[in-house]
Amino acid sequence: MSSTFGTLFRVTTFGESHCKGVGVVVDGCPPAMTLIEADIQPQLSRRRPGQSDISTPRSEADQVTIYSGTEFGKTLGTPIMLLVHNRDQRPQDYGEMSRIPRPSHADYTYQMKYGIRASSGGGRSSARETIGRVAAGAIAEKWLKENFGVEIVAWVSQVGDIAAPAVDMGLVSRAEVDRHIIRCPHADFAARMQERVEEVLAAKDSTGGIVSCVCRNVPVGLGEPVFDKLEARLAQAMLSLPATKGFDIGSGFAGISLRGSEHNDPFIQKDQRLGTSSNHSGGVQGGISNAEDIYFRVAFKPVATIGLAQETVDFEGKPTTLEAKGRHDPCVVPRAVPIVESMAALVLMDLALRQAVRRPG
Amino acid sequence: MSSTFGTLFRVTTFGESHCKGVGVVVDGCPPAMTLIEADIQPQLSRRRPGQSDISTPRSEADQVTIYSGTEFGKTLGTPIMLLVHNRDQRPQDYGEMSRIPRPSHADYTYQMKYGIRASSGGGRSSARETIGRVAAGAIAEKWLKENFGVEIVAWVSQVGDIAAPAVDMGLVSRAEVDRHIIRCPHADFAARMQERVEEVLAAKDSTGGIVSCVCRNVPVGLGEPVFDKLEARLAQAMLSLPATKGFDIGSGFAGISLRGSEHNDPFIQKDQRLGTSSNHSGGVQGGISNAEDIYFRVAFKPVATIGLAQETVDFEGKPTTLEAKGRHDPCVVPRAVPIVESMAALVLMDLALRQAVRRPG
Amino acid sequence: MSSTFGTLFRVTTFGESHCKGVGVVVDGCPPAMTLIEADIQPQLSRRRPGQSDISTPRSEADQVTIYSGTEFGKTLGTPIMLLVHNRDQRPQDYGEMSRIPRPSHADYTYQMKYGIRASSGGGRSSARETIGRVAAGAIAEKWLKENFGVEIVAWVSQVGDIAAPAVDMGLVSRAEVDRHIIRCPHADFAARMQERVEEVLAAKDSTGGIVSCVCRNVPVGLGEPVFDKLEARLAQAMLSLPATKGFDIGSGFAGISLRGSEHNDPFIQKDQRLGTSSNHSGGVQGGISNAEDIYFRVAFKPVATIGLAQETVDFEGKPTTLEAKGRHDPCVVPRAVPIVESMAALVLMDLALRQAVRRPG
Amino acid sequence: MSSTFGTLFRVTTFGESHCKGVGVVVDGCPPAMTLIEADIQPQLSRRRPGQSDISTPRSEADQVTIYSGTEFGKTLGTPIMLLVHNRDQRPQDYGEMSRIPRPSHADYTYQMKYGIRASSGGGRSSARETIGRVAAGAIAEKWLKENFGVEIVAWVSQVGDIAAPAVDMGLVSRAEVDRHIIRCPHADFAARMQERVEEVLAAKDSTGGIVSCVCRNVPVGLGEPVFDKLEARLAQAMLSLPATKGFDIGSGFAGISLRGSEHNDPFIQKDQRLGTSSNHSGGVQGGISNAEDIYFRVAFKPVATIGLAQETVDFEGKPTTLEAKGRHDPCVVPRAVPIVESMAALVLMDLALRQAVRRPG
Repeated sequence: MSSTFGTLFRVTTFGESHCKGVGVVVDGCPPAMTLIEADIQPQLSRRRPGQSDISTPRSEADQVTIYSGTEFGKTLGTPIMLLVHNRDQRPQDYGEMSRIPRPSHADYTYQMKYGIRASSGGGRSSARETIGRVAAGAIAEKWLKENFGVEIVAWVSQVGDIAAPAVDMGLVSRAEVDRHIIRCPHADFAARMQERVEEVLAAKDSTGGIVSCVCRNVPVGLGEPVFDKLEARLAQAMLSLPATKGFDIGSGFAGISLRGSEHNDPFIQKDQRLGTSSNHSGGVQGGISNAEDIYFRVAFKPVATIGLAQETVDFEGKPTTLEAKGRHDPCVVPRAVPIVESMAALVLMDLALRQAVRRPG
Repeated sequence: MSSTFGTLFRVTTFGESHCKGVGVVVDGCPPAMTLIEADIQPQLSRRRPGQSDISTPRSEADQVTIYSGTEFGKTLGTPIMLLVHNRDQRPQDYGEMSRIPRPSHADYTYQMKYGIRASSGGGRSSARETIGRVAAGAIAEKWLKENFGVEIVAWVSQVGDIAAPAVDMGLVSRAEVDRHIIRCPHADFAARMQERVEEVLAAKDSTGGIVSCVCRNVPVGLGEPVFDKLEARLAQAMLSLPATKGFDIGSGFAGISLRGSEHNDPFIQKDQRLGTSSNHSGGVQGGISNAEDIYFRVAFKPVATIGLAQETVDFEGKPTTLEAKGRHDPCVVPRAVPIVESMAALVLMDLALRQAVRRPG
Repeated sequence: MSSTFGTLFRVTTFGESHCKGVGVVVDGCPPAMTLIEADIQPQLSRRRPGQSDISTPRSEADQVTIYSGTEFGKTLGTPIMLLVHNRDQRPQDYGEMSRIPRPSHADYTYQMKYGIRASSGGGRSSARETIGRVAAGAIAEKWLKENFGVEIVAWVSQVGDIAAPAVDMGLVSRAEVDRHIIRCPHADFAARMQERVEEVLAAKDSTGGIVSCVCRNVPVGLGEPVFDKLEARLAQAMLSLPATKGFDIGSGFAGISLRGSEHNDPFIQKDQRLGTSSNHSGGVQGGISNAEDIYFRVAFKPVATIGLAQETVDFEGKPTTLEAKGRHDPCVVPRAVPIVESMAALVLMDLALRQAVRRPG
Repeated sequence: MSSTFGTLFRVTTFGESHCKGVGVVVDGCPPAMTLIEADIQPQLSRRRPGQSDISTPRSEADQVTIYSGTEFGKTLGTPIMLLVHNRDQRPQDYGEMSRIPRPSHADYTYQMKYGIRASSGGGRSSARETIGRVAAGAIAEKWLKENFGVEIVAWVSQVGDIAAPAVDMGLVSRAEVDRHIIRCPHADFAARMQERVEEVLAAKDSTGGIVSCVCRNVPVGLGEPVFDKLEARLAQAMLSLPATKGFDIGSGFAGISLRGSEHNDPFIQKDQRLGTSSNHSGGVQGGISNAEDIYFRVAFKPVATIGLAQETVDFEGKPTTLEAKGRHDPCVVPRAVPIVESMAALVLMDLALRQAVRRPG
């Protein structure tokens, strides 16, 4: 297990899908910052299940409580423990489910790695594990906003093969994103994506998608070469999320086909600083932020748990057919939007503190 | 700076392009393994410049010396220091280059982050920084091969918009890859890629590409949820390489368009274990290896340093034109092949040691 | 803040004296070990206040709850969160106390470091912070006992200038130690120590003491040179406890006066292994356990909070007199006994897992 | 192995007694600081063997070379590799020495831990391992001096049972300390200690001693509760040195006998800050520096390698007699003086950078 992320802003998450609670300890949060539950709850509420017809109906309020690290609404600089109780605790022997590893799920690998696994719901591979990340991310975001005006906005840019046109990354806002339950800011494409999700849901199947994200007003200088370059930490953060299969930043995979003369971002003088006239770099050069917008994409595979019958084998190797019971998200990307934002915030926050060390004495 | 990678197999690299030497300290290498310079040199030689007409002619033998951690050709379990002397040491004031930050290079961000930067050659953002990684990776690879039969093979799968057809991932070998200087195992496409690189070289321009990689015979159980999932560490490792812009694993970005019922990998009984009949997962489920082939892609942008004139501004913000002097690799992907293999080896080695803790007593 | 301890058995504590709760996340606990609250509670109960007339009467049941990481009474290999609710939550403005930093307490340094501090009770410098350590230590102890038969016993060997005679380190047991509330296994000296504590209590003063500790049946090979030598980690662990001022191991400070020929521990053949006929080394040679008993001492200063009037200055530098209100432990060593044991367990557990990596494949 | 120390000022040492070289990589050194070999050499020269009749005559110039991380005499903020070549490389089969583990030496535990060990000279348990620490410490000291005026002075305060009287900790200087080869600043006691060392040398025996150390002008606020409290890190640092058995800070073990009312350090107004009128705390309260002098003691056991015949057993358990060949330091404390200073500097430097994060924006 490796449930801690960050060097100076250190986040340690805990909790399975069906234990008493899930949450996080945040160690290294700067002191004397105002912080109450209401600063954290909104992103948790954007993440929670049951927000619409196309997400899992598991009923969880996901109400967060601050257990330590603040007093009279201010951080003390000490570890902040945030806890969300699991209302839906059902550790029980699932019969069939425990005999048959779900294809492309974590049942088999957890069993082989640990010699034991949570009886149901995926344990730590469940999406509930991300609650601690989102709670911690909300603190990071607040600090980044207050200290640098950082804005982080993610949205759904693709569902299945339906890819929405580019958005204006300088302007896209959470309000726009949340206007549609699919969380694509482009109304027409949002409707088409929604249809697609309803279609796969009806077919007891699932689909994948892409979450895109932009981080604005990030100060120059964040990123620690060579192993903690900004894009390296973002990549780790995003690929540590359940169901992710890819990450690219700036021009990404598409930029390969350009020539250097097209791809290079010429410097120009901006207000108080040097900037670039294009931004194929995605706000990062040499692993360090250059104050331009940081933007990246995260690929999510189709959800593994589906109602359709699947031919597979049980743990003993005996052929069998599996039909997942109950209802599951047919597409995770709408709920992944605040999770991606949170992980981006955790990366930027940690790197901002690490760079703070270098401010002139 | 963050020049250490790994938890139990800890690699700390050092060295700029024009200092006395570059290298690495490897801490945590298992004891009593045979190790001499000849085990390390081959991958360094595959990485070094000047191997062909299409790579930078910088003349470096890149001969490695083991300074500590072994005796009579065996590892002691103590830190292994590996050093490559820089033959080409020219720290000097580069005139124009020091006044003008190269577009899409690290000159500007290093200067802003540290308030100082190496006068030439890119310092730690130079490709020479990867020498320590490759040297350490060779040790990891040797151990993985001896203990599990792990085979790691990378190759060039795309240059510019020329994408080679899929290779047989169960069979592709380094010998095949090295048959062409472009390091694409597909002869026809290798020729086309080669032509493309010569063309951009002639045009004083550059191009990007993709390195693909497969890791065979990786044991089940590697990967430490949640933040050190196997794909998360691979993503960090690859995005920490100079000039990388993207990473995907298994079905990756392409898998998004599939439905869950198509994408899921059904379990089947294989020799002594459960396996899967397809491998969209890329050998990883729930962040943990499942003993199937691990395969992934890394996107490299077009090289930033080009001979073509670029309109830009100097550090003072004054408009100017920059033409990079000397010759540079017009395309990094052929030399990136052993580097990608090495980073994969470092990730697998560290996770293998971390999993070793869990072997039954 | 640095609230995480350990490399593979990673313990992250949280909680102030007057917040909602205190506790710990244990990441890296081996899977499939039986674990319920009753395994953890006994050491917490030995640690809690109000056990006798000579400890602080703060009323806390200190009942622990396992929130995550186990199912059906077995560990899953995932993070275990242990929580103790604070019954006595009184974050309030303490008037005088908030204007006057208590001499030799953490009020002044916390204020200077963080620019803010918990209004009362010492925040993270409070003894309540050790609850998470003790809870985590109980898990470590259980695993060490089950896997190696490790026994860890600490006792009070000195109070003020009353130093008890040496105990038989091969035999001393917790039952013996707990026979006297002062936790000195030597009845006569326990009585004299008890008298001394009652005397300083009556005088509204305080006294220091020494806790000694022995760890039996520790396997050979634990300790990671050079910075995580066994004694180095023990020293860090013990000096991270509130009110500690010194640590020595084996012959310690007293061994200085011996000659090498007296101090060296000759090897002899023991049952299945080499052992030593004397044990001035304290079970550690070259930073690595040698399977002999590990024993060490920890010095605790007199408690800083006393009822006696003290001439000092307030935060503004204005001379004033401070008399601490309420009652406090006049001597911490009896309650420090299980805390010292717990920290020893955390050190040994982490090093045992780190050494497990090296077991022959 | 765990050869890395520090969180932001990260020091990774390498090298055995008889390999090609010993040294260190320093990652996280602040950029733009002037640094040349001459800044580092003096402490290495104070540490090296052969300085007097009472130290081992092993002939080593211990000349340091900076391999990376600086340019034109300034640090770049990138990893600094410092290398000292071993002149005296003799990895060879030592015959008797390899059959018989030296009592109280690391031969046996290294062999049991790693299943292999350096054939001679102690490998990583050799005093040569400390070269990297001293080289890195010199950089830390330079930065601490330039930024805060920190002064670190260590001296020999006890040899065998000869304990020198207290020195004036506000004034004691390295010049005074180095006036006597025994490195005790008190002339009479230096002479007596010298005599004692010559006596044990003549007797082919050895003796232990104490190194005391003071750190002046340390700013308030250094130390990271709870596990990286200043005294906890110092304790780890000191107990990670070869041959150390104890550490205490401030009043230490002696303070136990005082009452709280005597031991507490009352606050008084000093120039620009609050200070204390006494300093039993040793400059640390609640694990955080309070700007008073930090002082501590380190106990070194008598050297294990002695010429006198010792009855012991060989690796097979067969009784035998061992007489160490060659000459060895009969007492390590004079040469330990710069080593203790260096470790103190490494601890303070890392904590200073970690606190720098909290400076007001």
